[in-house]
Parts: sequence; C-alpha cells; structure tokens
Amino acid sequence: MSRLPTVHDVARAAGVSRQTVSNVLNSPGIVREDTRERVRKAIDDLGYRPHASARRLRTQKSSTIGIRLDPMVDGISGSILDRFLHALTEQADAVGLRILLFTAARPEDEIRQFGRLIDGSDVDAFVLTSTFHGDPRTEWLIEHGQTFVTFGRPWGIDDMNDPRHAWVDVDGRAGVRAATESLLERGHKRIGFLGWPTGSGTGDERAGGWRDAMVAAGLGDGLVSLLETAVDTVADAREASARLVENGGGLDAVVAASDSLALGAVVQTNGALPVIGFDNTPVSAAMGFSSVDQRLDEVAAGVLDLLTHNEGTVPRHRLVTPELVLRSSHPPVVPDER
Amino acid sequence: MSRLPTVHDVARAAGVSRQTVSNVLNSPGIVREDTRERVRKAIDDLGYRPHASARRLRTQKSSTIGIRLDPMVDGISGSILDRFLHALTEQADAVGLRILLFTAARPEDEIRQFGRLIDGSDVDAFVLTSTFHGDPRTEWLIEHGQTFVTFGRPWGIDDMNDPRHAWVDVDGRAGVRAATESLLERGHKRIGFLGWPTGSGTGDERAGGWRDAMVAAGLGDGLVSLLETAVDTVADAREASARLVENGGGLDAVVAASDSLALGAVVQTNGALPVIGFDNTPVSAAMGFSSVDQRLDEVAAGVLDLLTHNEGTVPRHRLVTPELVLRSSHPPVVPDER
Repeated sequence: MSRLPTVHDVARAAGVSRQTVSNVLNSPGIVREDTRERVRKAIDDLGYRPHASARRLRTQKSSTIGIRLDPMVDGISGSILDRFLHALTEQADAVGLRILLFTAARPEDEIRQFGRLIDGSDVDAFVLTSTFHGDPRTEWLIEHGQTFVTFGRPWGIDDMNDPRHAWVDVDGRAGVRAATESLLERGHKRIGFLGWPTGSGTGDERAGGWRDAMVAAGLGDGLVSLLETAVDTVADAREASARLVENGGGLDAVVAASDSLALGAVVQTNGALPVIGFDNTPVSAAMGFSSVDQRLDEVAAGVLDLLTHNEGTVPRHRLVTPELVLRSSHPPVVPDER
Repeated sequence: MSRLPTVHDVARAAGVSRQTVSNVLNSPGIVREDTRERVRKAIDDLGYRPHASARRLRTQKSSTIGIRLDPMVDGISGSILDRFLHALTEQADAVGLRILLFTAARPEDEIRQFGRLIDGSDVDAFVLTSTFHGDPRTEWLIEHGQTFVTFGRPWGIDDMNDPRHAWVDVDGRAGVRAATESLLERGHKRIGFLGWPTGSGTGDERAGGWRDAMVAAGLGDGLVSLLETAVDTVADAREASARLVENGGGLDAVVAASDSLALGAVVQTNGALPVIGFDNTPVSAAMGFSSVDQRLDEVAAGVLDLLTHNEGTVPRHRLVTPELVLRSSHPPVVPDER
C-alpha cells in the first residue's frame, strides 16, 4: 500500500465497523476481547498509526489516566502507593491506557490539577488514592461529570453502594482479624495492637479487625490496656511499643496497622515477641516478620475494570481480601497452659 | 471580556510577543524567569486556557516527559528510582511539564514504547534510568533525533563529554570513599566492602571508592580478602557478610554498595560492627545505620535543567556529589592502638 493506511482500511481488514476500530483505540474496555485482538492485529499488519493528538481532538478521549503521585513519606510503608502505581501502570499498559502523573500537596491543589488536566483534554479519567472522611475531591469530580475510581472507600458517605462513587479497597479489617486469629491459634492471648491515631477510616477498620478477633475469642475485657497508637514512624512506634509492654500485663504478641509500626515493635522488643505487620513490604521480608499483603495487583485490576467498563454495571466497587503472609521466623507455638 | 481570551490578548497584557507566550506554554525553560512569571500572571488574570491537544498539533510539543517506571524490585534500595520519580514529578510540575509513565521489561520493549509515544506525539522528551554498558536505548534516541536525559552515565562510550549524551549521575565513587574515610578516621582498619558482582558501571565505581580510600590510607595490601559481592537482596547479603567475617581477618567495619546489602550485614553481624550503606533509605533511618544519600532532588533538578535548556550549552552533564549521613547509633571510635 503506497499511501498511509486509514481507519477505514483497518476496519475492512478486521471485518468490523469504523466505530469499532475507534472504540478499540479509545475505549478498549467496551470491545469484546476477540474483536479487540482482531482489530489490533489488523492495525499491526497494516502499520496503521493513529495520531494521538488528532484522535484526542476528535474524540475527546486521550486514553490517559491522571493520578497524583502521593507525597513521599519517610516511612517503610509509604512505598505501598508506589507499588500500587507500578501495578496500575503495568496493567494499564497492557490495555493501551497511559498514566499521567501530577503532584499536589493538599486536596485543593489536587482539585486545581484536575481542572487543568480536564481543560487541556490531557486525561479522560482519574484515579484517586488516600480517600478520607469529607473528601472534597470526589464531590468535585462528581459535580463536574468526570470519570474516576478511588483506591480507598468513600469514607463518611451514607451509602457505600452509591454508584457515583466507584471504588476499590482492601478489607483491612479482615486482614488484621486473620493476623490476630493466627496468633490466637498459636496460643497467644495478650495480643497488643499498635495502630494509628483514631479517626482515619483505614486505621479504624484495621483496629476493628483486632478487636473482632479478640472479642470472638472471649478476650474482649480490658482491651484498652492492649491498644496503643503512633504516627507512622519507627521512632514513634518504638515508644508506643514500650508503653504496650509496660501496660499490657504479660503482652505476648503484637499486631500492627503497618510495617513501619511493626518494625518499631520488632526493634523495641529486640525480636522477643511475634509481631505481624501490614503491607508485606520488602522490610518485613528482610527482617523476617509476618505481614498482611494488600494484593495490589488485584486492586489495580479492579480499578481498571471499573474505569473501562460500562458505568451501568453494578456494584461500582470491589473489596479485595488481603492475604496473611506468615514468615518462617514466626515464633513457635506458645504452650496453651499459660 | 465576553469572548474567550486568545494568545494575542495574553501577549498584549504581558507586553511580550506571541512567540514568547508560546514559549512559556511549550518550552518554559527557554524563557527568562521574570518574563515567564509576567506571562503566567497574564494567563491567570485573563483566564486564558490553551487547548492542550490543539497546542500539541500546532507545535508538536506536548510539554510531557516520558519515563519508564522501573520494574518493581523486591529489595530495600529499589525505592531509589521511585524517589527520583517523586522528585522529578514535583519539580516538573513546578515548571509546567508533565510526566507520562510507561512500563517495559527489556531495553527492546522500552525502545518500542519510545516509538509508540513519538508516533502519537504523546511526549516531547524522555528521561531514562538504569543506564548500562552498550545501552541500545540512547543509541536509538540519538539516531531518531529525540531529546533525552539519562539518570546514569553513558557507560562504555569513549567520551563522557559527548554532547549527544545528556546525563546526570551521582558520584558513587566519591560517596563510598567518604564513607570509608569516615570509618578510617574513627580508627577502623579492616573495613570490608560488600558490593555487587563486577561489571556494572555503578557498582564498580562504588567499589572503586572504597579501594581508593583504603589505598590512600596505606591499607591497600590484601584487599581481596575484604571484598565480597552479592546480588541486591538481604538474604544474599547475609551470606556474603558471613564470608566477609570469616575471611576478613579481624573485620571491624563494613561499607556496602546499597542499603539492602547493608541491612544484610547489620542483621548477620547482629549490629556488632559499624555498617554504612548507600541510598539513605527509610530502612537505614529506621535501623539506625549510616548511609550515603544520593541527593535525588539535585539529580532531578539537573535532569530538568538539561531538558529545558538550550542544547548548545555545555557540558551536557551533571555529576552530583552525594552526602554521607552519619547516624547517632554510629558506633564509637575504636581506640587507635589496635
């Protein structure tokens, strides 16, 4: 073919309509997989090159997802959002979507960035992380008719099934409950919980999982002496761990809301107590303590599924069950007679 | 103003040419800061909204930098490239540039991604990380006339000043030398080096810094018994540390090529020896060992400076001197009489 191939040539070669070719290019999620493959093959065979900018102007679709790169936190678990970004970028790439990064120090800055990216037709959907009670970002996006999915529940809204809030989250309560139960099964009874200050949906859910397991095991009395909170730094966690040991009355294990907190407990107790963290960071693997894995590949898959599938499908959310990773250095069973 | 403001309105309000307004929008780096501020103010005052897609077609400039999100490595120091990405995104945002992410498992995949992004006019420059000897990526970009900067030297080329290779790197040799000297000053003499297998430019430079310091201190004989290598995992580093202790003949300190390796040495020796790592990760802070900080803010600033400034300026590279971060738990001075 001496002239450049057109979308018409691709449609004819694949035996589909031009609209279908356009859909494969711009909204691959709405096209059946076998059709998508046939169109992609025709595109490759013919060497068809859609011009992204022209395509954008025509369709107002950039096949690009905007996401804020969260501020770097100086902790161990901060990398969890970087790991989510990795999973999301890899899976987006596989379905022909691109990830555009931006930064924003505060929610208002993030909203300003939304506006800029929408005005420039730079993105056609947003992924939000670190949702919180009274989050103004989702309200703004709903008001402005934008497509988005949050990693994190829409904390504080009345109905978690509200279809305007598409979300994916990890069931931290179930993960911490499983961690606590694994210690109970090993004979531990004075299991302390090292959490974050109350008020964050994520942190409160994780504390709830520990409380659920303790209450279910008939150990619900006086739980307050087994609960300490710290901000997510190792230094703070060491101090809180010291208080747990002091007030815990025979503390024999610790479950923590994050690997940063868990590392503080491991260092403070010099490895004498079993500690289970949350996030399954490289640090937990290196130091040999158990941890709850968020299964970020599942989270990323859920986010992309909600972004690319028809908004009519319900429910518009996914709750991923995390996985307890027990490490070989997990201490042996405590005799039941104590 | 009832109609939408145009670039002409902005130029008149700012007292500059339309070309200057265009430069501020598309190549802000080539405009003087005071002029840039004046134009930006006029844009804000008038509420002028350049349409990104239209602008792209007109100028073939998207003000977007493409960068590969490096494969997730299951180590402690892997986060260094994520931290570079954070610094780069924040600083790019401040000068109106955007970061588009992609993934690629191998150099050939990355080159294929370059081609796709160029064909789509999605980006107008690339940032490359993890350069290596015989890197085909830079050759390809040079052949195709693309703008790029590498974080990492163009290992293996004859002339590091070759202006076609714009690069920023951290002087790992100087950093490890400073780390080793700080131990020598404290009276240590049997200082082992835990490095990566030879053949990587970065790793060989870091080993060179240790060797330089030891030779300069008159301790160059029999260095081979003080050198061990491991791949960048804590488990491997523990084994290599055990060999160092066994063969090192009174080993009294360790310098490591990364914090992952350093953590292996800390765990293996149970904190009995001073260990200095490289990368100043949150893990080194949490565990309280010293480490060499790459100063990634400086690296990101250098990358953006080279990307946005005229290609005629020389040199087309920056070598950033890293900073040794000594931690308070750094062991006390060893008496000089040993």
